[in-house]
Amino acid sequence: MAFWSDAQLASIDRMLNPRSIAVVGATPRMQYGGRFLAAAMGSMERGVNVYPVNPRYEEVQGLQAYPSVSALPEAPDVVGVVVPYHAVLDTLRESHEKGAKSAIVISAGFAERGVDDRRDLQGEMGQFARESGMRVSGPNCLGLANLKDDIWASASSRGAAGLSGPVGLVCQSGASAFGPFLNRAVDEGIGFTYIVSTGNEADLDFCDFARYLLDDDDTKVIAGFVEGFKDGRKFVEVARLAAERGKPIVLIKIGRSELGTRAAGSHTAALTGADDRYDAVFEQYGVIRVQDYDDLLQVSNLMARCQRPPSRGVAVVSHSGGISSLTADMFGQAGLDLPPLSDQARDGINGILKGFGWAANPSDVTGFANSDDFPAIMSFMAEDENVGALVVASAGADPQATQVIAQRDGSDKPVAFLWTGTRGAQSGLPLLRQAGIPVFYVPDKLAAGIRYLNDYHDWREQRLARGFADTGELTAEQSAAAGSLSGSGALTEFDSKALVAVFGVQTTRDEVAADADAAVAAAERIGYPVAVKVNSADILHKTEAGGIRLGLADGDAVRAAFAEVTANAGAYDAGARIDGVVVQEMVSGGVETIVGVSYDEQLGPFLLFGTGGVMVEVYNDVALRACPITREDALEMIDEVKGARLLRGFRGAPAADVDALADTLVRVSQMAARLEGSLGELDINPLMVLPAGQGVKAADALVVGNG
Amino acid sequence: MAFWSDAQLASIDRMLNPRSIAVVGATPRMQYGGRFLAAAMGSMERGVNVYPVNPRYEEVQGLQAYPSVSALPEAPDVVGVVVPYHAVLDTLRESHEKGAKSAIVISAGFAERGVDDRRDLQGEMGQFARESGMRVSGPNCLGLANLKDDIWASASSRGAAGLSGPVGLVCQSGASAFGPFLNRAVDEGIGFTYIVSTGNEADLDFCDFARYLLDDDDTKVIAGFVEGFKDGRKFVEVARLAAERGKPIVLIKIGRSELGTRAAGSHTAALTGADDRYDAVFEQYGVIRVQDYDDLLQVSNLMARCQRPPSRGVAVVSHSGGISSLTADMFGQAGLDLPPLSDQARDGINGILKGFGWAANPSDVTGFANSDDFPAIMSFMAEDENVGALVVASAGADPQATQVIAQRDGSDKPVAFLWTGTRGAQSGLPLLRQAGIPVFYVPDKLAAGIRYLNDYHDWREQRLARGFADTGELTAEQSAAAGSLSGSGALTEFDSKALVAVFGVQTTRDEVAADADAAVAAAERIGYPVAVKVNSADILHKTEAGGIRLGLADGDAVRAAFAEVTANAGAYDAGARIDGVVVQEMVSGGVETIVGVSYDEQLGPFLLFGTGGVMVEVYNDVALRACPITREDALEMIDEVKGARLLRGFRGAPAADVDALADTLVRVSQMAARLEGSLGELDINPLMVLPAGQGVKAADALVVGNG
Repeated sequence: MAFWSDAQLASIDRMLNPRSIAVVGATPRMQYGGRFLAAAMGSMERGVNVYPVNPRYEEVQGLQAYPSVSALPEAPDVVGVVVPYHAVLDTLRESHEKGAKSAIVISAGFAERGVDDRRDLQGEMGQFARESGMRVSGPNCLGLANLKDDIWASASSRGAAGLSGPVGLVCQSGASAFGPFLNRAVDEGIGFTYIVSTGNEADLDFCDFARYLLDDDDTKVIAGFVEGFKDGRKFVEVARLAAERGKPIVLIKIGRSELGTRAAGSHTAALTGADDRYDAVFEQYGVIRVQDYDDLLQVSNLMARCQRPPSRGVAVVSHSGGISSLTADMFGQAGLDLPPLSDQARDGINGILKGFGWAANPSDVTGFANSDDFPAIMSFMAEDENVGALVVASAGADPQATQVIAQRDGSDKPVAFLWTGTRGAQSGLPLLRQAGIPVFYVPDKLAAGIRYLNDYHDWREQRLARGFADTGELTAEQSAAAGSLSGSGALTEFDSKALVAVFGVQTTRDEVAADADAAVAAAERIGYPVAVKVNSADILHKTEAGGIRLGLADGDAVRAAFAEVTANAGAYDAGARIDGVVVQEMVSGGVETIVGVSYDEQLGPFLLFGTGGVMVEVYNDVALRACPITREDALEMIDEVKGARLLRGFRGAPAADVDALADTLVRVSQMAARLEGSLGELDINPLMVLPAGQGVKAADALVVGNG
Repeated sequence: MAFWSDAQLASIDRMLNPRSIAVVGATPRMQYGGRFLAAAMGSMERGVNVYPVNPRYEEVQGLQAYPSVSALPEAPDVVGVVVPYHAVLDTLRESHEKGAKSAIVISAGFAERGVDDRRDLQGEMGQFARESGMRVSGPNCLGLANLKDDIWASASSRGAAGLSGPVGLVCQSGASAFGPFLNRAVDEGIGFTYIVSTGNEADLDFCDFARYLLDDDDTKVIAGFVEGFKDGRKFVEVARLAAERGKPIVLIKIGRSELGTRAAGSHTAALTGADDRYDAVFEQYGVIRVQDYDDLLQVSNLMARCQRPPSRGVAVVSHSGGISSLTADMFGQAGLDLPPLSDQARDGINGILKGFGWAANPSDVTGFANSDDFPAIMSFMAEDENVGALVVASAGADPQATQVIAQRDGSDKPVAFLWTGTRGAQSGLPLLRQAGIPVFYVPDKLAAGIRYLNDYHDWREQRLARGFADTGELTAEQSAAAGSLSGSGALTEFDSKALVAVFGVQTTRDEVAADADAAVAAAERIGYPVAVKVNSADILHKTEAGGIRLGLADGDAVRAAFAEVTANAGAYDAGARIDGVVVQEMVSGGVETIVGVSYDEQLGPFLLFGTGGVMVEVYNDVALRACPITREDALEMIDEVKGARLLRGFRGAPAADVDALADTLVRVSQMAARLEGSLGELDINPLMVLPAGQGVKAADALVVGNG
């Protein structure tokens, strides 16, 4: 799908790297318009032209003011709009006529007010931007900062202290972007290429800026704070591209709880989807989700500064036994390993320590962490072949920092620092930050960071090797079978099974029988024992209706069952149309599972797999993926479900046919993707997984059209 | 149990509040001995006498030096020992002869070396301390600091910048206590009463100092970093006393992972118990377990500074919509509620905002957070009757801080601050810290803190109301029944059930039958259907041995079963002594659960409850408590187990007898506690829970003596 055009990216490029900035609504007072002008004026020494526009002034903050955009001496690259909401559209139209390349609307009073006319006005703004090609960020945003060139087009005060770095930051909330996110980045010496706030996203949204940043070579990681995505599919596409290019996306996404979703809804117009679906998509596309802004910055910086560790083992060296244990404990909790040191490394370090401290992993090297021997100790640890990354836990001064930087520069193995000193330290810490050594301040955050670093690269390698899943095309047979689905309600079990069978799902052998004789004949063909179920599109709850008889061993039993279930069904619902019964093969010796398909308004089709019976209800033991999936995804889903132990041969039972199950999951996911728009939902419950080599059998299925 | 004597607490008191400090091994150089002396000398202006002891010097750091402790002009309150490991005991003996009240052994080279003779030497040191009454902290510690009076007896440099406060800190690791823990406390303006490092704990341990701090009125919260407890029962006792006095214990405890346990073992002599048992004890005794030192400090400070919120609802006010959503999301994730504002509060705030921002919970009050109207806004929110605590998320300067402090001072509802500015801010933040407003820096940590605050006080109220559980006394009958247990191995199912029955556990009706006739007679008395099981103390796995027949409907079946199971058992193990069979009532219509007892070397008896069958194996769906438990504890255990949904009437089944189940759990927990020392383990699997009113039935049981 073509979510982005060259023209759109060119407009964004002008917005983020402007050579000329107009500020409509510039004022002498340091409110939004005044701050925007002041921040922009700071860019003039870079050769950027800045034009205050305000008919009430001849001059603002020492610059000549213009009565209107039309009166400007040139067409600006970006127009900052700080006027009352009702005047915004006219300003945009005038700017477009003037030839402006882009606009940032700071003004609030649109969809976030929660009333229809303001929502409509915002819609009009978006439409104008798309039609005119003069793309718009906002409204209700704080603008952006280009920190590579120190150019600000923002209603926030300049505040990055000249710091730039490899992280591109895109936030819907401007007060967050230019508030705590920037504050903490400055605290920690973490630099950005760009800071973009997108506000209500009438036109350009998080994904558009992320897409632009994928093309920016200076941006190594895209960090985001998203309250809700405007278009989930566009996010999936940008995440896919990011994975291909090896540019991690690190996100805070509101929606962990109802309270957050509600609060986000109350002040932006963003839709928030069901959170577990987002988690599924994040995992499928390698997106790293974190909890807070300190995490976001530290993890983004780590991902940007470190290459892939050559192996997952980590070596930790510190000057304190207690910190060693705590760090080791947190690494273990994060599922990482601190491999034992090789003999060579241990002997080498012991040769230096001479009976003090511990040559182990973690190593507690006491005062040797602040000695001329420290480089040799680090080197012994880092050169160990089981070690992929080195962690130094200390609070040494500049000499130690210099040693650590040299270790990083002389090795292909990443080095991260656990800083145990005060956060305001004047020696050591500033040098580490300046050199781009990723610094963490507590062991659990460090462990989580290293885990993300390894997981991301492992994930990406696998993903590139196996590719993203293909939907494939509907075959003629599939197309024909699904033809009547759109607009229909629930299908009968028989019809549901017939449809999934066309998509390659094995089902029980079922035959419709109009009378008792036909039922017996069908049973003979299928082989005893059989089940008999009433066949009626009007009766969805067959068990409740007394419409099911199981384990029928001979013709007499089938004959009796026919009479019973049709009579019961008639008594249950006198108006139901009863089309005889379905005679069905009985399945025994399999493991009960469930497979389901649902559609998310934003993200499209999802596949659910879980253990069957009581387990799924009590433990909610399910795995979820956006469709389609690959075979490897299917195997991962199966592993994710705890009850899948039952498939692996539990308590002496034979192992089940996991291969056939994985194939089935892939086929159902393709069916879900191919039938998007006509299929409403699908449940196969139970899907019986037979012993290895015998396949699976859908014993019941329910297809509901997108009616 | 009397874990502490008055004399011991008096010795600790002298150690923590010394009027005279001797430093054996004091040197001019700033290594351990020199630093200890320098730190102690800083206490001299408080009237503390400080005596360097070192025969090699006339004078050290400007003070007259003494050749030995004996030569000192007075008996010191505390002796700091910084001499080679082999000279430590002699120094302690000499100090005791001189009349010293306590000692701190900085010297290392004891149990942490991992060799027997050093471990023995440490044992001797501990024994000497206990016998002499001159109690010892260390070895391998860094000493302590009394921050109330600014008296240091520590081999660490003075570093608290004069800061004192309501938290007592006890760490095994001295390098941690006086390193990151103190560094971060100074960063955040969080003050201590005392900092104590306990090192290898030859004599005094974490629990002893915690016990002392319970009596110290200035210490409101005890914060600890523990790699392993020397004596788990002593910890339980100090936690119980702390709960009674309302003094929270906040802990970092190593052992979340194998890696941490291993690392802790490699450098201290502490034993680490199984982590989930500690978690169970922490929960039972209201101990708050956190992950890292920043958490420890922030949570301890919050607990110390805030009284109990009058209700669990929280109100959040900020100047940013994005931060509002993120904070709300984290509160929701932490299981807290932000109740909607009352009409009065909403109207009041709207009257101030006049169309800007959002009067809601969270409130986004934009620039009004930095205006004269902010006190009125806070007050409207805090006075809402559904609100128990107020959170301000902002980064305002001193005027805002002053308003927030006034709000706190004028209300019985706690106020916490989410600081969104830079951590080094020079305005606002320092004032908040100084006034003891608990400050957090990211929303998820704040939410977790408020959750702890509410949970602790709710827990304590309940615990004080219901009391801690009583073990009770063994009755004569119980004593007789358990008489042969000590030293024995596994009992037969029949004997196991007989024993649990004496402790009040309902079991199936079972009879031993020596021959087939007796078996049939027993079956008639019990009522059909019955089970027949081989009765042999030598055959533990009856199913494997073909020793079980279920659902026998009449005498012929029983007779046949008798022949079969005895023959099978004989074939299975020709040497087994077979005492006929057990004829057993069949139980139907119940929910399968399991109940188990195990003993922890450190913490004593534990009770395990879980769902039965496949569920417990696949989902490890169990609850764990230290024994004994109260009835309320039992109900909590039942609620904790997800599969307990099956007990509440699942899919139309009748509700099970949860009352009888709770009674049974209490009884088994008492049995476990009463039989400590003679019982080795107990499994009741399954314990069938029958429909409400019908009780429970142990259908199988296995008792193993502490052989």
